[in-house]
This record gives sequence, structure tokens and C-alpha cells, in this order.
Amino acid sequence: MKRFECDYTEGAHPKILDALVRTNSVQTPGYGTDKYCESARKMIRAACGNEDMDVQFLSGGTQANATLIAAALRPHQAALAAATAHIAEHETGAIEATGHKVLTLPTPDGKITAQQVKQAVESHWADPTREHTPQPGLVYVSQPTETGMIYSKHELQELYKVCKQNGLYFFIDGARLGYALAAPGNDAFLADISKTCDMFYIGGTKVGAMFGEAVCIIDETLKRDFRYHIKQRGGMLAKGRFLGLQFETLFRDGLYLEISKNAVTQALKIKRAFQSAGCDLRYNSPTNQQFPIVNTLVYNELTKKYSVNFQEQLEGDRIVIRVCTSWATKPEDADALIEDVTRICNLYKTEAGKAAQEYFS
Amino acid sequence: MKRFECDYTEGAHPKILDALVRTNSVQTPGYGTDKYCESARKMIRAACGNEDMDVQFLSGGTQANATLIAAALRPHQAALAAATAHIAEHETGAIEATGHKVLTLPTPDGKITAQQVKQAVESHWADPTREHTPQPGLVYVSQPTETGMIYSKHELQELYKVCKQNGLYFFIDGARLGYALAAPGNDAFLADISKTCDMFYIGGTKVGAMFGEAVCIIDETLKRDFRYHIKQRGGMLAKGRFLGLQFETLFRDGLYLEISKNAVTQALKIKRAFQSAGCDLRYNSPTNQQFPIVNTLVYNELTKKYSVNFQEQLEGDRIVIRVCTSWATKPEDADALIEDVTRICNLYKTEAGKAAQEYFS
Amino acid sequence: MKRFECDYTEGAHPKILDALVRTNSVQTPGYGTDKYCESARKMIRAACGNEDMDVQFLSGGTQANATLIAAALRPHQAALAAATAHIAEHETGAIEATGHKVLTLPTPDGKITAQQVKQAVESHWADPTREHTPQPGLVYVSQPTETGMIYSKHELQELYKVCKQNGLYFFIDGARLGYALAAPGNDAFLADISKTCDMFYIGGTKVGAMFGEAVCIIDETLKRDFRYHIKQRGGMLAKGRFLGLQFETLFRDGLYLEISKNAVTQALKIKRAFQSAGCDLRYNSPTNQQFPIVNTLVYNELTKKYSVNFQEQLEGDRIVIRVCTSWATKPEDADALIEDVTRICNLYKTEAGKAAQEYFS
Amino acid sequence: MKRFECDYTEGAHPKILDALVRTNSVQTPGYGTDKYCESARKMIRAACGNEDMDVQFLSGGTQANATLIAAALRPHQAALAAATAHIAEHETGAIEATGHKVLTLPTPDGKITAQQVKQAVESHWADPTREHTPQPGLVYVSQPTETGMIYSKHELQELYKVCKQNGLYFFIDGARLGYALAAPGNDAFLADISKTCDMFYIGGTKVGAMFGEAVCIIDETLKRDFRYHIKQRGGMLAKGRFLGLQFETLFRDGLYLEISKNAVTQALKIKRAFQSAGCDLRYNSPTNQQFPIVNTLVYNELTKKYSVNFQEQLEGDRIVIRVCTSWATKPEDADALIEDVTRICNLYKTEAGKAAQEYFS
Repeated sequence: MKRFECDYTEGAHPKILDALVRTNSVQTPGYGTDKYCESARKMIRAACGNEDMDVQFLSGGTQANATLIAAALRPHQAALAAATAHIAEHETGAIEATGHKVLTLPTPDGKITAQQVKQAVESHWADPTREHTPQPGLVYVSQPTETGMIYSKHELQELYKVCKQNGLYFFIDGARLGYALAAPGNDAFLADISKTCDMFYIGGTKVGAMFGEAVCIIDETLKRDFRYHIKQRGGMLAKGRFLGLQFETLFRDGLYLEISKNAVTQALKIKRAFQSAGCDLRYNSPTNQQFPIVNTLVYNELTKKYSVNFQEQLEGDRIVIRVCTSWATKPEDADALIEDVTRICNLYKTEAGKAAQEYFS
Repeated sequence: MKRFECDYTEGAHPKILDALVRTNSVQTPGYGTDKYCESARKMIRAACGNEDMDVQFLSGGTQANATLIAAALRPHQAALAAATAHIAEHETGAIEATGHKVLTLPTPDGKITAQQVKQAVESHWADPTREHTPQPGLVYVSQPTETGMIYSKHELQELYKVCKQNGLYFFIDGARLGYALAAPGNDAFLADISKTCDMFYIGGTKVGAMFGEAVCIIDETLKRDFRYHIKQRGGMLAKGRFLGLQFETLFRDGLYLEISKNAVTQALKIKRAFQSAGCDLRYNSPTNQQFPIVNTLVYNELTKKYSVNFQEQLEGDRIVIRVCTSWATKPEDADALIEDVTRICNLYKTEAGKAAQEYFS
Repeated sequence: MKRFECDYTEGAHPKILDALVRTNSVQTPGYGTDKYCESARKMIRAACGNEDMDVQFLSGGTQANATLIAAALRPHQAALAAATAHIAEHETGAIEATGHKVLTLPTPDGKITAQQVKQAVESHWADPTREHTPQPGLVYVSQPTETGMIYSKHELQELYKVCKQNGLYFFIDGARLGYALAAPGNDAFLADISKTCDMFYIGGTKVGAMFGEAVCIIDETLKRDFRYHIKQRGGMLAKGRFLGLQFETLFRDGLYLEISKNAVTQALKIKRAFQSAGCDLRYNSPTNQQFPIVNTLVYNELTKKYSVNFQEQLEGDRIVIRVCTSWATKPEDADALIEDVTRICNLYKTEAGKAAQEYFS
Repeated sequence: MKRFECDYTEGAHPKILDALVRTNSVQTPGYGTDKYCESARKMIRAACGNEDMDVQFLSGGTQANATLIAAALRPHQAALAAATAHIAEHETGAIEATGHKVLTLPTPDGKITAQQVKQAVESHWADPTREHTPQPGLVYVSQPTETGMIYSKHELQELYKVCKQNGLYFFIDGARLGYALAAPGNDAFLADISKTCDMFYIGGTKVGAMFGEAVCIIDETLKRDFRYHIKQRGGMLAKGRFLGLQFETLFRDGLYLEISKNAVTQALKIKRAFQSAGCDLRYNSPTNQQFPIVNTLVYNELTKKYSVNFQEQLEGDRIVIRVCTSWATKPEDADALIEDVTRICNLYKTEAGKAAQEYFS
């Protein structure tokens, strides 16, 4: 069984393991105050061209989301997000557990627009009974989105602008940020992102690290006391050095971007294979997550050899699957998948396939 | 500068790094459902002689404490703990952030007694206005305590009994459990602990792992849905395999206990050195944390070469310091510390020392 | 300006004021342990034909909702409710502030179905990644709904059944319960309701009281310790006697139902007037809230003399307004409104009206 | 049985009932936006000589405390309070339920000092590991305290100063404020209080109202959005007019102070009777709560006719009781109590009494 179900099926990039082994016996102070964290902070600030950012390391995405949002909002405020947002759908109510509602906006493809935010906020403030509803306090987007899509630099700027005009924080969840940076057509690079939001994070877990997210805080108010929040929410690793070491490694010599590119390259090959085989795509993703639509026969056949995600059942015999690549995906494994996709899709498209389909249904 | 300030100044046990490197390219499913976690679960269950325990892996102690306590208590309930307990003192209000008060009991040495718990609970239920106060719902102890002390098997049994008689959960924080297991005089082994509480955890972070705590749940009600709580509180690692791998390594061939013994051996050598040099001890700890009392001159001289913790200022010129060893402490480093302790303490005890002391004060 | 904007524009029923004045100098113990509360409890239990219910008095609806839901759910659980539910829309995130997500179900008219609940719950449990989403723990409905609609006895039974089959609590918010009980066609009476849910409350604030909701708890687990929750959430009135006194008055000689009938009678007269004048209804409500659809000219003209709620802007020049009556609505005020509705609607329906409309638009 | 157990055993001041009856049929908008609330706001602002205060009405003290503290603190911050503070002792963890720890300071008499606050705050900031402990964010005192004591104007000024110097909010819980204002020797009047804190409230429930606390917010940041918090925490009364009406009545022609004086006069008579009968006082209270120390025989005899509070068991046969008067205490009832206190105490002080005591013990 080859795994394409997510981007965390392998361990860590070998250079990270090397760094761990090399530095293992060095003594350091705890809680992210060591020299590896300090060095990683410098490298990330440099990569972002933003010397004033506070950079802190947390162990995972849900933790980073809950910690940042709880630190940013006052009790009566809510986070605005796409209905498909990770914080809305897949964190077991972690944001609500900190006391805050997630107000969702519908989208065709997982991306919200500045116009939607503007309207939601204006509609809140225009309501004479607004005190009976949570006040929007923050806009959350993920880059790339949970649907694999990317925001352009201009779109992010517009979102940031509408946030600033309305007193909201703008937060970019970059759990898979590398795969956006490496996407063809992307024009929102680290230097842009660190100028168009109040806080964002650079995902390590899904992009080559064992675990860890580098939280970058740009807003001055949010910087203050942030480490208390990390500790309170259980995100302060005693041996914080491991987080620093991993990001130091990922940001040396462009490794982060380099390994992200492999994931995107393999994903786009796979995307084209599904398209060539006549499959529609649920989202036209340029990143490492692909969402082809297949029928039950294809799905059953494919999942005998490959682990992919059942994403959504559409009307008719149409199943959206999620196929993920990662920094670790071997080109030969992608090629094998492509070959099988082509073969299986064609088989079940032919008359024989249709007959088989009718027979089994 | 040699570090004796805590038990997480080094990386991980080399066998753990070996295991990481060896298995790095293996593909596994995420979130602790992989084969390494399953194998570690089996080994821990076997070590505890308890096949029915649920074993889950979290990344850190504060996270484990908050997740377990929030999962166990209803909203109006509180945790009973020693005033020196980690959850009362050093977690930035993490328990309160989940909505629960920590009710503290005073202790001479960090250990609470079954009698104290009984009295606190009976006093609550005897109060006709009890609905105006939080209801004790859980007893929390750490083994060893934050003061380095250990509960005997009998003491744990008495605590468990009083909890069960009064409808409370009994929770043992074992962030440093190895150092209790390895302490001379200890008679509460894993098999005992897993029979005298509702939940406990086996600390990895401070005992040889990079990070990670193995949470063991004995109570049937607490087992149900526990993984939702892990996810909600941000403790579910995507690459959960790393937690499984580490505990699999620690529990193979008795490694966990073996490396714990080194810490205790070095700590007790250091303890004897302070005693021989005429220092009182704040707590008579048999584990890896030692709490000698020194004067300012000794403190200043010692901390030029060694990093130790300033723990408490007592009346008079008396400073309690915390000196920690760990699985990684080299005997030669402990010996060097001992030599310096002996020299410095003697120097500042002599007439010359007294004169110097007067001169500087 | 005559007020039809809500059902709490007047004070309290005169018999309640009489009772307050009559008993004012009597000394009682506090916090709802007085004889008036005890007597009210008995009368409510008798009215429900349920001697085992626990009855507690809280001061308002949002408080009752948050207190009950927080008492019922474990941290990882969520409340299922209609998208239009009060807890989802108009309580400033009060439920989320206790840590719980509100999972919403779409409805045409504010009423959810047992089938919807079944599907939501089964879909949760069928999801292999369900631990990443909040677990449904409770179903919330309001009777009548925020849209004025009522559940039939059978519908409530089906909802209760599906809850019990799936381990969920079933909670009925009866902030306006009197107006459902008095609705033509209603077949779910107090005796039925107290047999088809785990907890519900009988609204006082909107049905003749100064303030206060009588919370009735049927489920044994929820009864336990409920008063702690009331105190913790700020709902325990020191002079609880006032709550008891009011409900004692409302439940003597059928006053509660009698005054509810007036509200419904007046509301249905008004409903018919809007219908006769050619207005569509957003919801076909048989209770004291009516939702006619008018155009801007009618809206502007009407609101010169009457205070009504702007509820929703539909496409085209169509405004849904909410017109409320209450126990205190005077028939002559309703008649005056009806006359004006008829006049104004007719005016703006005629050719002249259309011309005027075109002119102003 | 005459009740001296608390200050909420009677209904409301007759003038309040008059006002309710007089205005009952007037229609008003809801949620505290009516003319009675507006008028009460003006009268309270005038009484405080502070035109800029925001005044909002909540239904009870625990609710006011939790709402204000949760609105003021960021998640990692804690409230500093006396160990005997209501928020620390008698609110079922209501503050913790909003996520915040209450850090307590020991006191001999329920009053904390500016020096204590200074030391607690400086000690926090001096701690290099402060991020592992909650950050003091607010100082809470009650005036009078739970022990009946009052802060002088100077003491409040010092507390406020140390708060402002250290970036903390200063919050005065005035649930019994009238009884401090009316105490002999008091020099902290409304005009002073509204200049020496960021927020305070004027208690109605315990001083003549049916229920209700008038929350006064001086700090600009706290004013913003405060009504959202009231709604979210369940404190926004639909018929808010009742709160306005009550405070309008209490603040007309000095009624609030006048009725408070009666309570204090009666309490001080009772205090002197206990002292004359040889009883020690636990606290030397000048307000409506008195804390004499009696023995078991006196306690048993006294509580046959009078309801008083068992407050604390001291070593030896010494019981601290709490005896409360209120605005409603009749002088003749106080006199009867005094006569019995004198008689009973003398009886059980004589040789016969001692013998009896020995016999029964």
C-alpha cells in the first residue's frame, strides 16, 4: 500500500535527522530560549525580510491556531473563516474550547474574498441588535487552503486592507505554506506574506519536519506576552531546541522551498493524469493536494493499492478523493500511481467498464 | 557552563535517534494510529501488567495535565492538589483556562495525604452552602513531586481509596516517573501505580525522549472519547509515530529504568556532597532533583561555573537552589560539581570565608 | 408609538405585582430555597404530571441555555440546533463561551427533524476521522421556534427517540412556551413535553413575569449538582423568592395558559389582516410572532406609528418584519394596527401606490 | 425564627414596589435601553460626580464579577484578591469558568494592601520564568469586604496608584457598598470611589432592591463593547427597565444611603451587645456584618430563635458567627436579639454555665 492520503506519512527530511544527531549532546536551556531557536528566528526573519517579527515555535497546527486566535480575540469576538476552514471543520471545536465562535462564510473553492469580509463586518455593525451576536474580531485564511487553492498577493493585500480598515486581525495559517510558495503562478512570497497580515505561521510538520510550526507575529500588541499563551495552551516544548534545529535546517540554503517543489511537481503530474483520464476536478488546485472526482469502481480499484482520502460524496456516482504528495514523495511512486490511474479510469470508462459498473451496481 | 538546572538540557537518548533514523522512510498513517504507537502501547501495558489500559501519547506535561483534567471534570468541579503542585504553580493557569479551579492543600514537603483529601472533601459536603464553592472532583499528585519526594505504594493506595470512597478521580502526573521508580526505597512500581489510580502518565520529555508523555487511562469512563480531547487541546501530533517510536525504544529491554538510575545515582552523590559540606536540605529528596540551602556567596561562586535553579529565598542569607540531574548527566560532570561544592562551601564557611562574607555584604 | 417589536415591552402581570407587594416583608432564606420556590416547584410538577422533575429558577433565557448546555455536555461535545436557533444566532456566542460549538442544521422554517438529527449523528460516527470534529452531544429545539412555528407532539417524540437511541440529550427551550401551548392545533402540552425531553424550561420573562425561567430537569444525571452550575454561571438570584413567587402566581388557576391565549388571539388577528391585505408570510406561524412580508413603502409608513422588527431583507423590494404580541397586548391596540395595516397595504397596492412607489424608488 | 443570616431575607424597599406598580403598563424597549435605565444612569453619574462613566445594570454580584473580570483580562492574566474574597471563595469557580486564575493574598482581616499588590506584581516580573505563571492583570477588592471591613479613601488611592503604575486594572466589588458608605469613619464616598478605580459596582440586591447591581465603568477600554459581554454571560435582562427603575428609586432623594444607615445602626448595636457580653470579635467591622465569637452552648441556644451564619470553627470551643442586618432590619428585632445575646452569653459564662458546658461536652 502506497500512501497518498496526506502529507505526513513519512518521517523527517534526512538533513533534520542529521542535525538532531549532530547536536544531541549539547546542553541548552529549555523552552525555546536556546541558540538553535535564536538562529532559526534570525533565518526566518531574514527569509521574510522582516527584522521586527517575533518568531515562536509551536508543535502543531491546531495548537498554533487555538493559541493565536485565543491570544488575539477578546471574549465577545469571533473568527471569520471559510466554511471549509480547518478551524471550522477539523479541530474538534478547539477554537470554541477557548470560548470563541467561528463565523463561516460560504465559498465555491475554499477561498474567501475581501468583499465577503467587508460585507460580514459591515452587516454586523449595521445591526442595531449587534450586541446579541459575536463581533468579528479576526479573519482566518489558510495558504494554501484546505482545498489546495492559493490566494494571490493581491487577494491577500485586499483581505489585509479590509481587516485594517475594520479593526480586525488578519491571520494566515500556513500549515502547508511551502506548497503554496512552490506552486506555479504563486506571487505571494514570504516577504509579501509577512507584510500583509498580523500573524502567520510556516508549517514544518507537513513540509519536512518531524513536527513544528514557526509562528510569526507582526502586530505589536500580539507580540506582547505571547509566550504566556503558548505555555498556557500546552504548546511550550521543554526541549524547544528541537523546534529551532528543525527550522534552522529547513531555512538553510533554501531547503524549505526546494523540498516543497518536489511535492508540487509530483502532484501536478498526478493531476494531469486524472484529467487526461477524463476525471473532473473538485478544485483546480496548483498545490500538493489534488481533488479528482472518480466513480465507485475506480475508487475501489485504486484504493486496493493506494491509500487516498475519501473527501466528499457528490450526487450521482461521484466521489471526490484527496490525493496528497509531500516533500518525501518519490517520483517513481507518483509515476506508478499515474499509470494505475490511467489504466483503471480507462478500464471503467470503456464499454466493458460500464457493463461491469452496471453489473456491480 | 555545566547545566544542572533541569532535566531537559540534552537531546534524546541515542537509541531513540537511532530508531528515528532507521524508520524514517517508512510510511505510516497519522495521529498515533501507526504500528510504532501500537507496539509502544503493548509494551507499556505489559510493563504495567495491565492489558486493559488505554495508552495515548501527548507531546508535553502541561498539555497532558490540562487535557486529562478537563476531560475528567464536570464544569463545577475542581482539582485538589498540593500548593506546590505543577498545575497550581507553573502552568500559566492552564487548568483554569479549561474552566476549573485548582484547590490547593498546604504541605511541608510537596506531598498531600489521604487524610487531607478526606477532610477537604468531607468539609465540602458538610457545608450547607457548598453549591457556592467548587466541588472537589479529582485529586492530582505528581510522582515524584515537584520537591523531589516520592509517595510510597501505601500512600498512593490510601489516596486512591479515599478518592474512590468519595467519587473523585485520582490522577498521577509522572512527568519524572522514571526518577521515582529508580529511587532507593521506592516501592511503587508501574504495576502498582496502574492499579492505584484512574489515570497517570509516564514522562518521556524528562527521561530520555525528545518529547512526549505516555498517558495511561485505567478508568473506563475516561477512556471513552479521550482522543477527541487530545485533538481539541492541540495535543494530537500528525506524525504521532515519533511518540510511539520513542516509547517503544524506552520500554525495550528496560531502558527507561536503566537511564533513570543514572540520574538518581548522580543526584544522590551531589546531595551527599552538599550535606557533607554542611548544607541543610529543603526537602530530603531521594530522586534526581536536589534542594540544598546555600548562602549568597556560595550561590554566586557556584553559578559562575554551573547553571542551577534559584528556587526560594528563605529568611536569613539562605537560598534554596535546585540541582537536577538526568538520564544524560555524565558522572564526571557530577564529580566536578561535587568537588566545587565541597571547595566553595568550605571556603565560605571558614573564618576567611566569614570575613569575606562580611566584607562583601 | 405602539410597540409590537417583541413580547417584553410591558412590565409584569398585575397578579405578580400583587404577590410581590403582599409578601414583601416576609423573611426567607436565599438562593431559591424559600417556601415560594418550593410551592412553585410543586405547582409546576403537578402541571406537568411529573413528580420527579427537578425545577430550578433562573433569571433569563440565554443564561438558562448556556447553563444547561454547559452542564450537559463534555468538553468535546457540541449542540445540534437549527441554523435559526437562538443559541446559534442571538446569544453573542454564549454557548461557545462555555467551550462548545453549536452545529447547525438548515431548515425551511426553523424546525429541525428527527431525520436530520439521525443523519448528522450517523454521519459523525461513520466518519473514521470523527475525532477531529466535535461530537454531537445534545439536540436543542425551541418551542415555539424563533420563527413562531410549533413542533407537534409526534415530532418531539421522534426527536427524543432519535436522541435516546444515539446517546444525546434532548433540550427544549421554552422561552415562549406559553404561546405554543395556546396555539391552535398544538397537541404538545406540558405533560407531553415533560415526557419527551431531558430538560426544558418554561419561560416567564416573555409570558407575564418580570423575569425568570423555570428550568425543569427530567434526566437523573443532569439533576445532580445542577445548582452548582447555576451559581457558577451567575444565575443564582440571592432573593430567589421573587422567581418562586412569580411562577407560583403564573401557575395558579391556569393563569399562564390564560394570558398566553390573549397573545395568540391578537397575533392571529394581525396575521389574517396582513394576509387579507395581500402580504405573503415568511413563516406560517400559529403563535404570537408573525412574519409578514411587506415592501419598503408599507414598512416606512407602518413604522411611523408602530414599532416592529426588521427581520430580513429578501430579494426584490421585500422586507420580512416580525410583529409580536404578548400576554399584555390590548385588543384595541391590535385592532388599531390591523386597521392601519389594511389601509397602508391597500394604499401601496393600488395604481397610485405603485406610482408612488416608482416615484420614490 | 428571626433571620440575621444575611442581608437579603426580605423583599424590596416599598418605594421600589411602588415604582414597579406605577409604571407597569408603560411600554419600553428591552435590554436596558429604556428611559428608566437612562434616568438611573444619569442619577448615578450625578451621585458620583462623574459624567463620563458608563453605567450598566446586571442582575447579580457573581454575574457582575465574572463579566467584568472576563471582559478586562487577557487569557493569560489573573485577578489578585484577598484569600477571603468572594471571587476566591464563594462563587463556585465562576472566574475560573471564564478561564482565569484568582491569585490570593493572605490578610488578617480581609483587606489587602497596596504594598502586597506591589510585591506580588514585582515578584512576578522579577521571575525569569514568569511566563510559566499567570500574569497579574487586575486587583479585586470588595468594599466593604466579606469580613465587614472598609478601605479608607487613602487605602483605595494607594491600591489604585500601584495598579496604574503596573498596568493592572483596579476593580471594586460594591455588592454591599451602601453599608460601607454609611459606616462611621468611612471617608471613601461615591465621588472618591469613582475616581480611584477602573470599574466598580453599586449593589442593589443587598441594599433595598429586589435584585440588580449598577456597574460603573470608568476606564475607556473597558467601556468599549461591554454590553456584548453582559449578553454573552447571560446578564442582559430582557425587561431591563426593572433594573433601571430600581436604581432610579434608590438614587432619588438619597434613599440608598438612608436605608444603608439603618442597617449599620442596628449592626453596631448588636456588635456592642456581644462585646459587652464578653465576646471577642473575629473582625472589628463597622458595617452591617458582625463576626462575634461564641462557644457551642451560646451558639446552640441562640440559633433556636435566630438564624445566623456559622462562619468558622476556631481552635478551642470557639465559633465565629456572622450576624447581618440590612436596610429592612427592624430596630425592635435587633433589640430582641441584643437582649437574648446578653442573657445567653451571661448564662453560659457563669459558673453554672461552665458546669453545663462541661457536662454537655
